[in-house]
Amino acid sequence: MQEASIKAQSLSGFRDFLPEKMVVRQYVIDTLRQVFERHGFEPLETPALEYAETLEGKYGEDEHLLYRFAHGDRNVGLRYDLTVPLARVVGQHAAKLTFPFKRYQIQPVWRAERPQKGRYREFYQCDVDIVGSSSPLADAEVISINYEGLRDLGFSNYYTQLNSRKLLTAIGLYAGAGEQAAGIFRAIDKLPKIGAAGVLETMAKYGIADDVARRALDLALLSKGRRDQADDLKLLADLRQRFAAIPEGVAGVDELSAVVRILPHLLPDSAYAVDLTLARGLNYYTGAVFETVVVDGGVGSVTGGGRYDELVGMFSGRNLPTVGTSFGLERLIDIIEGRAGQQTRKTLSQVFVSVFNEASLPASLMLAGELRAAGLNVEVAYDYQKGELGKQLKYAAARGIPLALILGPDEQAQDLVQLRTIAAEGGAKGEIAQQAVPRSEIAAALRARLNLRADP
Amino acid sequence: MQEASIKAQSLSGFRDFLPEKMVVRQYVIDTLRQVFERHGFEPLETPALEYAETLEGKYGEDEHLLYRFAHGDRNVGLRYDLTVPLARVVGQHAAKLTFPFKRYQIQPVWRAERPQKGRYREFYQCDVDIVGSSSPLADAEVISINYEGLRDLGFSNYYTQLNSRKLLTAIGLYAGAGEQAAGIFRAIDKLPKIGAAGVLETMAKYGIADDVARRALDLALLSKGRRDQADDLKLLADLRQRFAAIPEGVAGVDELSAVVRILPHLLPDSAYAVDLTLARGLNYYTGAVFETVVVDGGVGSVTGGGRYDELVGMFSGRNLPTVGTSFGLERLIDIIEGRAGQQTRKTLSQVFVSVFNEASLPASLMLAGELRAAGLNVEVAYDYQKGELGKQLKYAAARGIPLALILGPDEQAQDLVQLRTIAAEGGAKGEIAQQAVPRSEIAAALRARLNLRADP
Repeated sequence: MQEASIKAQSLSGFRDFLPEKMVVRQYVIDTLRQVFERHGFEPLETPALEYAETLEGKYGEDEHLLYRFAHGDRNVGLRYDLTVPLARVVGQHAAKLTFPFKRYQIQPVWRAERPQKGRYREFYQCDVDIVGSSSPLADAEVISINYEGLRDLGFSNYYTQLNSRKLLTAIGLYAGAGEQAAGIFRAIDKLPKIGAAGVLETMAKYGIADDVARRALDLALLSKGRRDQADDLKLLADLRQRFAAIPEGVAGVDELSAVVRILPHLLPDSAYAVDLTLARGLNYYTGAVFETVVVDGGVGSVTGGGRYDELVGMFSGRNLPTVGTSFGLERLIDIIEGRAGQQTRKTLSQVFVSVFNEASLPASLMLAGELRAAGLNVEVAYDYQKGELGKQLKYAAARGIPLALILGPDEQAQDLVQLRTIAAEGGAKGEIAQQAVPRSEIAAALRARLNLRADP
Repeated sequence: MQEASIKAQSLSGFRDFLPEKMVVRQYVIDTLRQVFERHGFEPLETPALEYAETLEGKYGEDEHLLYRFAHGDRNVGLRYDLTVPLARVVGQHAAKLTFPFKRYQIQPVWRAERPQKGRYREFYQCDVDIVGSSSPLADAEVISINYEGLRDLGFSNYYTQLNSRKLLTAIGLYAGAGEQAAGIFRAIDKLPKIGAAGVLETMAKYGIADDVARRALDLALLSKGRRDQADDLKLLADLRQRFAAIPEGVAGVDELSAVVRILPHLLPDSAYAVDLTLARGLNYYTGAVFETVVVDGGVGSVTGGGRYDELVGMFSGRNLPTVGTSFGLERLIDIIEGRAGQQTRKTLSQVFVSVFNEASLPASLMLAGELRAAGLNVEVAYDYQKGELGKQLKYAAARGIPLALILGPDEQAQDLVQLRTIAAEGGAKGEIAQQAVPRSEIAAALRARLNLRADP
């Protein structure tokens, strides 16, 4: 077993998450979980493997990215997203579920992409959906989940762009595009990347007449310059008049207006805006679509979703109107990892209890036990037989544990503990401060140093 | 998309975890995570897929249970356990890790078992290991993790059986078994299932002479009748004399004695016991072995582990002494699901806010927002357009949400909220109680009803 005959390597496109990365990942996941649960969304998990036929025919031109293989006499595939499994679960377990079914799901998916920077073959998705409700409050609540999720993750400058597939279709019809309406919104969606001229060029490529293209783009740009909810409602009223002869347009206006009227009761006015240029790539949306954009640092969109009333029922043989959003978990984790200081810690361990020598092991263990009962994450030195205090503290420093305690015979005699700051977070490296603290006050002193509440 | 042409079904041996199940799973996982982190263990995650050659040759006669397939020009396999990935990670990322490396890992593994009751092809494992320390404190801390994990999960009557592979080998040698020592402890391990006569029969089958078998069994039974740590230490002192001429026996006694001397500083005396009949199945243990047994309800062992100094270094080309334990997560979840009442809740949602009619939606949303800020999990009715309060409360009851609020025009005028108990947990089904509470006191009243601390 001792020879390293097999090379230790992971597959290309697959990642090990060492503790330092995991600390951030768990912070993001735990924070979002709390937001979802606060709103009554509940967790769901589905298997990594599904029957291949459950997955096939669902992902269009990306189907070749499925990990498929034969197992025994079965063709199986690895989970490619969380939407098809949701639809399968709703079809399979309808009798056990209460509708509206509000679930969140945070699990890895697998796609045989060509590995490249920022693109992985295994990555987490994080989806929140309300299945079985057409209520505009469902749309509004999902939009507010985007807001609260980012707020609780420490973001400040961001907002949710909001549109409706029905409005996009109506814009195309109104402009005179007829059957080509879909080409119009696919082109308009690229506006932030390619500008107005680029959008017109793209429409021309799709075979859309120049005057139609210009009319459609002008309409979509009506939502620019929005200041507050009143502007959204004024815009929608304006569109309702223009679209009077287009039933889909009227329905789109009415649905989106109902959502917009609810939003101020759930999130600040500056945290959302109707944006008629937002289309989103996926084909299956039927109503509202939205994306949350972080304004600072060119980060772009970090959540996206919408209403898709005709997909989740596909295994059920019935209509299950659904609205949901997806957090770009991997992207959020990357952004938060890149942040200076605060949120990110190198380790979850807060206190390192050194062991002066074998005779003082019981005293150190008793101290560690008390601190754990006081809600602290505590490590005790394993290498105490030779009493190498310096080596022990070096380990704590390498681990990034912020505080260390020394409890030698002198301290024990005087009922004291030496509290040493190993690596002040954000402070100069190697900076060491030491202070004697009465034994009975040490838990409180540590909690104060770590900026924790007095009680666990 | 509307026709249910594809049958909604999951693969045999694979499970969907609907919210009701997930609530228990997350409770167990979150509780154990806290215990691990309190002791300075940190999370690790590894990919679902590994190079097939990383997995091959590691699982003996069970290798056929690996899910293996070709992908492009690579042979890959699904994670079969969490130990081989740990060894691979330690080999691949040694430069980034600080040793002793204390990690926990909670992830699914896949095994192509024949599906049957209680046996799945996808299930979670939950491992805690200390890599790179030979300290007896490492063994003792891992044993204490077993204790604290079960304590925090609400178990009361359980203890950890403790032995050493070196002592088992020494028992065999001392009894005169020579090369057949391994057969002896494989037979003795079955004692709880087949009794003393069965063990002797099994040894006979292994070709062990009757007198050798009897001597070995008598030795192993010396640990029966243990009352406290003093008995453990007396037994070990006795063995040290008997094994004076067997170096492995002396080492085993000394190592285990060091661990036993530390244990009382970490867990109650009644929570562990040296048991010379414990062997554990896996081949790779080199020192201490242990299992935690729940005494009530014939549940048997729920955690198991030991010291295995020659395995984790297999990809590293160096020695990495390791001790760890594995929680039988699926079994623990089954037990806790089966418990009456308390720990298990049907839903995480705590409060249902009804919506009297469309005009009172803003008031209901404001109330819900305040309650969420007060740390409560709150759902708001989606179907309010027709003002069907009865239907709304029926949904809340079906979901198992314990408390509901009614805030109609009368209540709003009087600054009151009606607080209704929908389904008193453990109480009679359908039992309904209603009480008017001043608007300003409602959050506190709800927290009190839910037995939560006054502050979030």
